[in-house]
Amino acid sequence: MQSNHRYRTNEHDQANRGLIEMAQCPRMPHRPFQQFRDDRALGNARISDSKHLGISRFMRLDSAAYEDGALHGRTKELLGLVASAVLRCNDCIDYHVEQCVNAGYSKAEIEDALNVALVVGGSIFIPHLRHALLSLDELLEERSRSTRTE
Amino acid sequence: MQSNHRYRTNEHDQANRGLIEMAQCPRMPHRPFQQFRDDRALGNARISDSKHLGISRFMRLDSAAYEDGALHGRTKELLGLVASAVLRCNDCIDYHVEQCVNAGYSKAEIEDALNVALVVGGSIFIPHLRHALLSLDELLEERSRSTRTE
Amino acid sequence: MQSNHRYRTNEHDQANRGLIEMAQCPRMPHRPFQQFRDDRALGNARISDSKHLGISRFMRLDSAAYEDGALHGRTKELLGLVASAVLRCNDCIDYHVEQCVNAGYSKAEIEDALNVALVVGGSIFIPHLRHALLSLDELLEERSRSTRTE
Amino acid sequence: MQSNHRYRTNEHDQANRGLIEMAQCPRMPHRPFQQFRDDRALGNARISDSKHLGISRFMRLDSAAYEDGALHGRTKELLGLVASAVLRCNDCIDYHVEQCVNAGYSKAEIEDALNVALVVGGSIFIPHLRHALLSLDELLEERSRSTRTE
Amino acid sequence: MQSNHRYRTNEHDQANRGLIEMAQCPRMPHRPFQQFRDDRALGNARISDSKHLGISRFMRLDSAAYEDGALHGRTKELLGLVASAVLRCNDCIDYHVEQCVNAGYSKAEIEDALNVALVVGGSIFIPHLRHALLSLDELLEERSRSTRTE
Amino acid sequence: MQSNHRYRTNEHDQANRGLIEMAQCPRMPHRPFQQFRDDRALGNARISDSKHLGISRFMRLDSAAYEDGALHGRTKELLGLVASAVLRCNDCIDYHVEQCVNAGYSKAEIEDALNVALVVGGSIFIPHLRHALLSLDELLEERSRSTRTE
Repeated sequence: MQSNHRYRTNEHDQANRGLIEMAQCPRMPHRPFQQFRDDRALGNARISDSKHLGISRFMRLDSAAYEDGALHGRTKELLGLVASAVLRCNDCIDYHVEQCVNAGYSKAEIEDALNVALVVGGSIFIPHLRHALLSLDELLEERSRSTRTE
Repeated sequence: MQSNHRYRTNEHDQANRGLIEMAQCPRMPHRPFQQFRDDRALGNARISDSKHLGISRFMRLDSAAYEDGALHGRTKELLGLVASAVLRCNDCIDYHVEQCVNAGYSKAEIEDALNVALVVGGSIFIPHLRHALLSLDELLEERSRSTRTE
Repeated sequence: MQSNHRYRTNEHDQANRGLIEMAQCPRMPHRPFQQFRDDRALGNARISDSKHLGISRFMRLDSAAYEDGALHGRTKELLGLVASAVLRCNDCIDYHVEQCVNAGYSKAEIEDALNVALVVGGSIFIPHLRHALLSLDELLEERSRSTRTE
Repeated sequence: MQSNHRYRTNEHDQANRGLIEMAQCPRMPHRPFQQFRDDRALGNARISDSKHLGISRFMRLDSAAYEDGALHGRTKELLGLVASAVLRCNDCIDYHVEQCVNAGYSKAEIEDALNVALVVGGSIFIPHLRHALLSLDELLEERSRSTRTE
Repeated sequence: MQSNHRYRTNEHDQANRGLIEMAQCPRMPHRPFQQFRDDRALGNARISDSKHLGISRFMRLDSAAYEDGALHGRTKELLGLVASAVLRCNDCIDYHVEQCVNAGYSKAEIEDALNVALVVGGSIFIPHLRHALLSLDELLEERSRSTRTE
Repeated sequence: MQSNHRYRTNEHDQANRGLIEMAQCPRMPHRPFQQFRDDRALGNARISDSKHLGISRFMRLDSAAYEDGALHGRTKELLGLVASAVLRCNDCIDYHVEQCVNAGYSKAEIEDALNVALVVGGSIFIPHLRHALLSLDELLEERSRSTRTE
């Protein structure tokens, strides 16, 4: 009664992917990265508008945590990515994936970090892994384009 | 100043539902189940593309966890649903609701499992309960249609 | 290689916000509050349809938790907001922000409560803080309009 | 085969409690509050020893979040308690229960706040509710003794 | 510099176990199950003492969730175990392991349920898996002794 | 009524620390690291005893995640520490602090990683930060002793 086929079905997923690409699917299932940037900018502008001293101090503290210290800022971006990943926050994941791409990490390195998050966080992280990998591809493509035109 | 009416207001909700149905509301508030399937297929295809051995092994391990073992696979689908529910992941809930419907569980049985998640997980689970029940209805309707046409 | 500019960049965010407002951006990045109300009404109607006694009892218990008791219901709305905030559930945050606005709390008071959530919950809460503040503005604007016309 | 008696069994629990009190049980199952104070003092001393600027700034920010602002510090102690409760951290619960007792809240008021946490957080919070209530009793007894001797 | 040997090292763990058993280690690292029962009875007695209507109603609702309904109570005990496991609460795990043992589940069945929790919840669950398996052994031993003497 | 002194009170903590050191306090509030090692060895031996194929495969996968790959194993130990920290699991923190010390990270580097966890995870992480720092001191002392005697 139950066909217990899960993530293994490469054939099935490949087929599905083909269908999606062929169908010229009118909506894009994955949030385009620029939408995240716009939403984040809008929301951060609202946070900046707040007169609450505690909130603005927290924002500075958050910012400072990723600057060079005993560890390189670059290493800490990877820590921020894995922390965001296991806490399962797509917006935080997107932010840190971009920071990691900007910091020069390769696709394989970022996937290796996400694998740590997958093992620590379990299968509940899989939907976020999907999201992270699609964002990663978009950002690497963007970086590659900007490098070619420089 | 504050009218503390909450979920009780059946009259109010009934009215609201009427309004929504009558208004032929141009957007569908609940994500259609097919959109989840497409998004998941796209993301899983991206995961399959990854060359990371750890990731592909995790996927197989996840798949194997729901196969028949000391417990029936069918029972473990229910465990997967409740685990996803208390961890509050809509994509995981949708996946396991579908697996449970495919495994032949009735509406009343799935609601009984979701009630365990509600009591264990608390009111913070309520938005996910709404989501799960709307997905459940859509899938039961789909199953009922497919049974009639067979 | 890495420009570690984060939330500080007021100039940048201000500019971005300007761009967004000027561009008459065809999609609204932040979910309009009315959409949440409609989705919630639809989902709650579905919950009411359930014949599961445990679920309907839980709904009443949830409702009763915010009524006047040893603490004022008004105070407990604030507790509900902070609980929803640190558990990072946007739907629950939206519900409780509206309850707090209806209970007469000021913008500064609600931001002060959200600051507690930010310190307790950490930077992983920031995307939800953005959401909460944009909802708050929309609801305060609505309250202000309804007060003027009364 | 299974006697599904759970928390209801007042007779049983009363009996058990009697047994425990009668047995002059040589170990105290609940951590004495003073042990928490000592552990916390030791750990905070270690935090103070750290030369990390980010850590010491975070500590100040945390402290400031509960000072009088748009909301009374007293109200924010209650917010801190509920936030700690739904995030299920016994040390944080103990700290905030003590702050709430020092702020003059009554037993009934603190139980009413914990009830919000119970409904929001669900039955997974019950072991922490047990802990919180036993700490509360110990602290109220301590406050009552110190008031009598003043 | 780093010997990255982790859980694999069967030889090492076997050796360690031998050492522990040989050393007649004066303290028992794993909390004896009876201690959990005593602590829980004490805490539940305190909860029963509370006059808060919401709290006592929640307790009854929690109790009712595991009674026979659309699903057998026996099945729901397994759901309760997995929910407790992925939410990583040792007291809740102990309670539900005992309920599952009382309901007649075998060692292999309970381990199969815990494997679902491990895959869903990830390696962060491993310390709780250790705890659950040690409790399980103790309870199975107890059940086996009580069956022999009947 | 309320003395809202929190973590700031250096004088108070210094005094307390003095008291604790002077009192030659007969119990050690912080779990000695060797106890964690023994408990973990005992529990891992029990996991190894399990015949469940899924569990033993998960253990190998977990182990493999920290071996050299696209990223150095050494870097991934730091990722494991921060993931454990924000998920607030003391046993996992202890394990990864030891791995990081074995990998040669300095006190300042490990504190810098823990600061990322503190900012991401919020004040709810503070009790775990206390735990992590006390474990760190014990392990650095142990490393320093073993280096001197080599």
